[in-house]
Amino acid sequence: MDTLIRDALIITQNRNREIIRGDILIEDGKISKVAKSIHGGAEERIDASGKLAFPGLVNAHTHIPMSLFRGYAEGMRLHDWLEKKIWPAERRLKPAHVRAGSLLGILEMVRSGTTCFNEMYIAHMDEVCGAVLGSGMRASVGFGMFDLARKTSPEEEFKNGKSLAEKWSGKSPLLNISMAPHAPYTCSEELLLLAKEYARRNCLRLHIHVSETRKEVFDSLQQKGKRPIEYLHSLGMLDSETVLAHGSWVTKRESVLVGKSGASLSHNPVANLKLATGGICPLREYLEAGANICLGTDGTASNNSHNMLETMKFAQLLQSHLYWDPLRISIQQVWDAATINGAKALGFNSGSIGPGKEADIVLADLRSCNLAPLHGPPSLFFSLHPGNITDVLIAGNPVLSEGKFTSLDEGKIIEEAQRQAEGLVGD
Amino acid sequence: MDTLIRDALIITQNRNREIIRGDILIEDGKISKVAKSIHGGAEERIDASGKLAFPGLVNAHTHIPMSLFRGYAEGMRLHDWLEKKIWPAERRLKPAHVRAGSLLGILEMVRSGTTCFNEMYIAHMDEVCGAVLGSGMRASVGFGMFDLARKTSPEEEFKNGKSLAEKWSGKSPLLNISMAPHAPYTCSEELLLLAKEYARRNCLRLHIHVSETRKEVFDSLQQKGKRPIEYLHSLGMLDSETVLAHGSWVTKRESVLVGKSGASLSHNPVANLKLATGGICPLREYLEAGANICLGTDGTASNNSHNMLETMKFAQLLQSHLYWDPLRISIQQVWDAATINGAKALGFNSGSIGPGKEADIVLADLRSCNLAPLHGPPSLFFSLHPGNITDVLIAGNPVLSEGKFTSLDEGKIIEEAQRQAEGLVGD
Repeated sequence: MDTLIRDALIITQNRNREIIRGDILIEDGKISKVAKSIHGGAEERIDASGKLAFPGLVNAHTHIPMSLFRGYAEGMRLHDWLEKKIWPAERRLKPAHVRAGSLLGILEMVRSGTTCFNEMYIAHMDEVCGAVLGSGMRASVGFGMFDLARKTSPEEEFKNGKSLAEKWSGKSPLLNISMAPHAPYTCSEELLLLAKEYARRNCLRLHIHVSETRKEVFDSLQQKGKRPIEYLHSLGMLDSETVLAHGSWVTKRESVLVGKSGASLSHNPVANLKLATGGICPLREYLEAGANICLGTDGTASNNSHNMLETMKFAQLLQSHLYWDPLRISIQQVWDAATINGAKALGFNSGSIGPGKEADIVLADLRSCNLAPLHGPPSLFFSLHPGNITDVLIAGNPVLSEGKFTSLDEGKIIEEAQRQAEGLVGD
Repeated sequence: MDTLIRDALIITQNRNREIIRGDILIEDGKISKVAKSIHGGAEERIDASGKLAFPGLVNAHTHIPMSLFRGYAEGMRLHDWLEKKIWPAERRLKPAHVRAGSLLGILEMVRSGTTCFNEMYIAHMDEVCGAVLGSGMRASVGFGMFDLARKTSPEEEFKNGKSLAEKWSGKSPLLNISMAPHAPYTCSEELLLLAKEYARRNCLRLHIHVSETRKEVFDSLQQKGKRPIEYLHSLGMLDSETVLAHGSWVTKRESVLVGKSGASLSHNPVANLKLATGGICPLREYLEAGANICLGTDGTASNNSHNMLETMKFAQLLQSHLYWDPLRISIQQVWDAATINGAKALGFNSGSIGPGKEADIVLADLRSCNLAPLHGPPSLFFSLHPGNITDVLIAGNPVLSEGKFTSLDEGKIIEEAQRQAEGLVGD
């Protein structure tokens, strides 16, 4: 189906970062033309006058089944919360829980302008993949493997990741499978190497947590004589197919290792603050080293939202705070992190609005009191909220149209999520 | 007019901080009854089943005419931005600019659940008061006086504040006038004392910026031998009628001075981060000292939003970060700061949902994908966004009803704000 989006104010995120007023033609799920005025017929026309168009946001680190835990057992310190609440609940997880949480997370992401996400979770991952394909969302999904924490063998744990890849790789251009060893401190060296080798051999991304907390760094130094990113580097695990989540507690030397390797880093500011990890990811050092910086929400259990617009605001403002300088990370760099850098990290040809690109496009109503007056589009992420978003296209498919989901039954998904959450933790 | 709100999930913010499911009866602009089920007729009935009700939020520090500057000249450092952009524009301000910016700010506040705000600005303040009365909003409004910066005499500058009070005090129960000397470093001692004496004599609030930046503290120590809050204390300017904005760069001794005096403090986290002031207001110390802690957005020129829900999230998370402890400021304390504490600071009988209170009430649709599942209402401010808010009542008057303004012409106000902003800074 061809679609013509008419008369939008477009943040293109193209090579020259142009912002233009014009039309976007979509053919076969891809953008074929962007111009001031496109003539000719298209099967579908979307009137976007008075609207902003921007590339669908890429959430570079999350755990969407944890949507069921949003707001569950608040007001506890991390350790108690995990040991007494989250882990016991996770041991009870059934496929229906994961399915319900995944669909809920997808609804929330679409409504807040996210069209693609990087997922890692620890059980029933077939349900996540099924939810992605069933909803028309774009995602990179990996099975979170951790033999040390789960007390299994490296081989047994590796099978989880491998089976997911074998079952789902190549099933849809909207779905990539990644290898997702949980973290250097929860995985044995054997498992990390098995995962990386398999990823290399099969051209899959590697997705791993690293240096989220100070304790993790201390333990790593004590046990391995290396900081976590140094350790991953020593195993040959850093390259352009690797996506690191967090990387907050790092030395400058580690940021250089990440930059030189071409690895991507997902900064997840809201979750870092909520868990009070104390470290703010030093984006300036990473950027100076040439790292591909992305942004993520992390799971809603530690956020409590999948709202990437909010994450963009937190990211820019936290860096201003960290360096006592409002210009240290520019507004443009934040857009890049949330769009093209994320797409590159996950291996999708999306993240900008230009010919040949995947048609992942978000429209927002500029006639909103929180967006006026319009002095310049780039800073709009400081004031945009999900209520401003009217349309979301993924691979040209209008998943959200004039504020309504076209095929997902939102009410039913919300009800089912509530029911499954109560069954899981309603104690 | 009597109004009955039926079957809401109510965050009451009453003395026991009860959360109940039930009805709210409003008579003559005040809440007369809150109970599980209220029988009997009311002229208006609002079906709030599936909705959350919470007390209208109180924005304890802002400059709403600056709504016209939202997103204007981004990407500049504070000093350049003020000297080259904002101050020249402010010298060109006409009444129509202030009116347009005020109405825009009010729209945005109502849509994000704010029913009351604490305003200080520097020109054409009659227009702000007119916008408050014309819109049905609740506010405390003061003329921002600063003889040192404006190079006028204390008496001349004081006249601005006094005239506003004489003209508008007592005009409406929705409007309080405050005395608003801008800051210790922009006002002479004479002006500060004139303002405070007048406020005391006429039972008005005093609203003043203090200790926002480190430079201000250094300069104060050098010029006066005292830190800014010590200086205000030495002038007898701290008491329960005083609202301090910022107070980020303070010693523990200063937080104790604030607490002992019974003064209120508005913490404005988003603006502090955006201007990269480097200091995070130490709420724990203020709370331990017994200070009345409130929250504000500051103007949208340094935010870029009037969204108090977002400010609540930033406030809680920043304190978690500051103290490396997610429980240092509780979710309940954040609700208190954004509701009852703010109302107390500004001298209004609002901020909670209970008999005898002003009927400032917000309804939000709980059947929203970003709010499900519902494990507990208090943490909802971490995930609520303005798009979830359906109804806003101020003094019982439904200003926003099912997502639509009942008497304000939203489209027209947005258009006019755009037009006035272009006229003001479209260079």
